[in-house]
Amino acid sequence: MPRILLTGFEPFDRDTVNPSWEVARALDGWQTDGATVQTLQVPCVFGAALARLDQALDAGPAPVLVVGLGLAGGRAEITPERIAINVDDARIPDNAGRQPVDAPVAAEGPAAYFSTLPIKAIVHALRAQGLPASVSNTAGTFVCNHVFYGLMHRLATRPELAGTRGGFVHVPALPAQAARLPGMPCLPLETQVQALRVLLRTALAVRQDIAEAGGALH
Amino acid sequence: MPRILLTGFEPFDRDTVNPSWEVARALDGWQTDGATVQTLQVPCVFGAALARLDQALDAGPAPVLVVGLGLAGGRAEITPERIAINVDDARIPDNAGRQPVDAPVAAEGPAAYFSTLPIKAIVHALRAQGLPASVSNTAGTFVCNHVFYGLMHRLATRPELAGTRGGFVHVPALPAQAARLPGMPCLPLETQVQALRVLLRTALAVRQDIAEAGGALH
Amino acid sequence: MPRILLTGFEPFDRDTVNPSWEVARALDGWQTDGATVQTLQVPCVFGAALARLDQALDAGPAPVLVVGLGLAGGRAEITPERIAINVDDARIPDNAGRQPVDAPVAAEGPAAYFSTLPIKAIVHALRAQGLPASVSNTAGTFVCNHVFYGLMHRLATRPELAGTRGGFVHVPALPAQAARLPGMPCLPLETQVQALRVLLRTALAVRQDIAEAGGALH
Amino acid sequence: MPRILLTGFEPFDRDTVNPSWEVARALDGWQTDGATVQTLQVPCVFGAALARLDQALDAGPAPVLVVGLGLAGGRAEITPERIAINVDDARIPDNAGRQPVDAPVAAEGPAAYFSTLPIKAIVHALRAQGLPASVSNTAGTFVCNHVFYGLMHRLATRPELAGTRGGFVHVPALPAQAARLPGMPCLPLETQVQALRVLLRTALAVRQDIAEAGGALH
Repeated sequence: MPRILLTGFEPFDRDTVNPSWEVARALDGWQTDGATVQTLQVPCVFGAALARLDQALDAGPAPVLVVGLGLAGGRAEITPERIAINVDDARIPDNAGRQPVDAPVAAEGPAAYFSTLPIKAIVHALRAQGLPASVSNTAGTFVCNHVFYGLMHRLATRPELAGTRGGFVHVPALPAQAARLPGMPCLPLETQVQALRVLLRTALAVRQDIAEAGGALH
Repeated sequence: MPRILLTGFEPFDRDTVNPSWEVARALDGWQTDGATVQTLQVPCVFGAALARLDQALDAGPAPVLVVGLGLAGGRAEITPERIAINVDDARIPDNAGRQPVDAPVAAEGPAAYFSTLPIKAIVHALRAQGLPASVSNTAGTFVCNHVFYGLMHRLATRPELAGTRGGFVHVPALPAQAARLPGMPCLPLETQVQALRVLLRTALAVRQDIAEAGGALH
Repeated sequence: MPRILLTGFEPFDRDTVNPSWEVARALDGWQTDGATVQTLQVPCVFGAALARLDQALDAGPAPVLVVGLGLAGGRAEITPERIAINVDDARIPDNAGRQPVDAPVAAEGPAAYFSTLPIKAIVHALRAQGLPASVSNTAGTFVCNHVFYGLMHRLATRPELAGTRGGFVHVPALPAQAARLPGMPCLPLETQVQALRVLLRTALAVRQDIAEAGGALH
Repeated sequence: MPRILLTGFEPFDRDTVNPSWEVARALDGWQTDGATVQTLQVPCVFGAALARLDQALDAGPAPVLVVGLGLAGGRAEITPERIAINVDDARIPDNAGRQPVDAPVAAEGPAAYFSTLPIKAIVHALRAQGLPASVSNTAGTFVCNHVFYGLMHRLATRPELAGTRGGFVHVPALPAQAARLPGMPCLPLETQVQALRVLLRTALAVRQDIAEAGGALH
C-alpha cells in the first residue's frame, strides 16, 4: 500500500513535548484513500534531521506524499507553508548546540522551492470544517525550514522521488504548553489531529490547487 | 440544592454563535460539591441584560455563586476578570442598536467592584490542569463589563445576596469562529467546558484567594 | 503662577532610560495657558514613589493639574488611562526589590478612581494633530497604577487639593529601547514631547469631557 | 556621478499618503560616498510598477544600488527583506483593480531571489544608531514583493546590470496614519529618513555581509 511519510520534531528549546510529533504519532498507521501514514521523528538538529529523513525515504518505495510538521509557538492556526528558502539562520542553538548563520541548506540548491501540496485547497477544506487555518509565507530560518527545504530539494533532484509531492505545515502549541506561557495561543491535540486528517485527505485528492486569494500584503 | 447561576450571552456583532452561551448551556444541571448549575442566556443589550439577570436572581433562593461568561475575541486564554468598572462606553452598537458613551452602569454606584471569585486560585488550578488561563485587569466597557458591574453592584447592595459570591470570566472564540477570522486564537468548546468545570469547582472550594503574582506592568 | 505637576519614573527592569522621565524633564518650566510645568522624578518603588509625590504636592500651592507619566513597553500610542484600581500586584520586583501581591494601595480606599482628565478630548486632540493615541482601560497593577491610584486618592480626600484635577498617561518606548527589543513599537522623544504639549493644553482647556466613543469590547 | 535608485509607492488601499514615497523623495539628490540618490515613484499596480522601474533603469547608466521601499502597516521597525518570491497573490485589489492569485511574477524565473544588500550589516548599523530594525523573511505576496522580485530578476538576468546590487525594505506607518488606525505602530518621517541614510551608507560600504544571527524560528 502506498505510504504517506509524516514527520514531527522532538522537543526543543527546553520544552518536554512537541505537538508536531504528538500529532504525527497519533496518525501512525492511519489509512486514507488507499494510502497509509508512516511517521518519523526527526531530531531538532541541523543536518541530522535530514540524515534521518534520508533513511526513511530510502527505506521502502517512494512515498506518495511527504509532509513535515513543526511547532510554531505563537501562531493560532494550522499553517501550510508556501515556500522553503535556502538558508539556515538560527536565532537559538539547535538540540546539538549548533547555531548556523546564513549558511545554505544545500550548497548548490536554488534560492527556494515552493510546496507541492495544494495549500489553498487545504486551507479552504480546513476552514470549511470549522478549523482555523491560513497559508504562511515564511517557515522561518530554523530547523523547520531546513527540513522543508531539504525535503523539497530531494523531491526535486532525485529521480526516484519524481512522483512524490511534499510540503511543510506549522502547528500551534498545545494547551499544556500555553498554560506555561501566558498569552500563547494553542489548539488541543485532538483538534490538531482532526485537522491533519483533513489536510492529508485534501492533499491526496487535489492535484491542481484551487485559485483562492491567500496572500499577505507584507 | 444550592444553585450556581451561570450566564452566557446571545451572539452579537453579526455572529451566529457565542461561546459564552455554548459553554454555559453545556453545563446546565451539572452538579459539583453539592451545588447545581443553573444557566441563563442574557441579551447583548445594555440594561436588558441586567433586567434578565434580576429575574433569575429573584426566581428562587440566593445562588451561592454567580458567574458571568462573555466572549473576548482575540484572547487565547480563559481569563477571570479582576475588576468591574462603572462605565458603559460602547465601541459598536449593542443588539438593540444602543451605543452609550461614558454613562455609568449604576448612577449612584462606586467607580468599581473587585470580583469576589478567587481569581488567582482559579488561574493556578486551570494551569495545573494544562489549561491556558490568566487574570485580566480589564473587562472592557461594553455589555460584558456592564453585566459584571451590574452583578457585583447587586451582590454588594442587596441584603438577600450578602452571602453570594460572583465574578466574570472572558472566554476565547471557538474554532469555527476563528476559521472565519484569520489569525484569531480559539479554544474548542470541550476545552472551554472542561475549564469551566475546574473554575466552578475551585470557586466553590476556595474562599480565601491565594497570594500568587498575577499582575500586569501596564 | 499656577503650576502643573508632571511626574516621570526613573528607569526600571534593568533599563537605563525611561521615556516617562525624559518627556517630563523636556517640559520642565514650559508655560501654557498661564500655568507652568514643574517636573518630579519618582522612584519605581511601591510606597516611596507616593512619599515623593507627597513632598512635591506639599511644597507649594495646590497644582491646577497633576499628570503622571509611565512607560508602557509594547504599546504604540500615547494612552491616557481611564481608571486607577486599588491593588498592587507586581509581576516583577520594583527597584527596591519589593513585590507586593494583591495588596491595596490605600487600605481604606475605594476599589477605583476615574481619571479627572478629559481623556476623550485629549485623544481627539492628539489624533487631530496626527499623533497616535487611544484611551486605555487598565494601567496595570505595578508602580504606574500605584502612583495613579495614590494620586487620585489624595486629590479625592485632601481638602486643599479639591480643585486639582489629575490622571495618568502611559507612553511608548523610545527608538533606542526598541532597537534593543526587536518588534517593540516606539515613538521618538520629540514626538512624545509634542504629544504631551497637546495633552496638557487640552487638559487645561477642557473641563467637561466630550462624549466620543473610546471604549473596548473587552 | 554614480546613482542610487530609490523607489517608493504611491498611496494604496484608500489611503492618501505612503511613507515609502515620502521617505524616498526626502532623499532625492542626497549624496553619500560619491553616489547620488535618484528617486522614482512606482504605481501600486502589478506589472505597471515594473514597467516604470524599467524606464528608470534604462534612462541612464546602471545604478550602483537599487533599493525599493514599501509600507508594512503593522510593523514597528525598518525591515530589510531577505528574499523575494516568484508569486503574485493579492489579498486586496491593486490600484488598477487587479487581483492576481498565485501567478508568477516572471514566468520563467526561479522560485526566489535573495537580496544582495548586506541586510545583517544594515540591521546592525541601524540598531547601533538607536533605530529599531529587524531582518524580515517575507515581503508578502502583494505589489511590494512583486517589485522586489522583478527588480532582482532584472539584476540577475540583464548583463548591463551585473554590477548593480539591490533589495527591498519595508517601513512602518507614519504617525498621521497611526492616528487613524488605533493600535498601529508608527515611526515619524524624520526618523525613517534618518534610518534610510544609515541604510544606504551601509549598503554602499559593506559588500560582504556580516555573520550575525537574524533568523526566525518560524
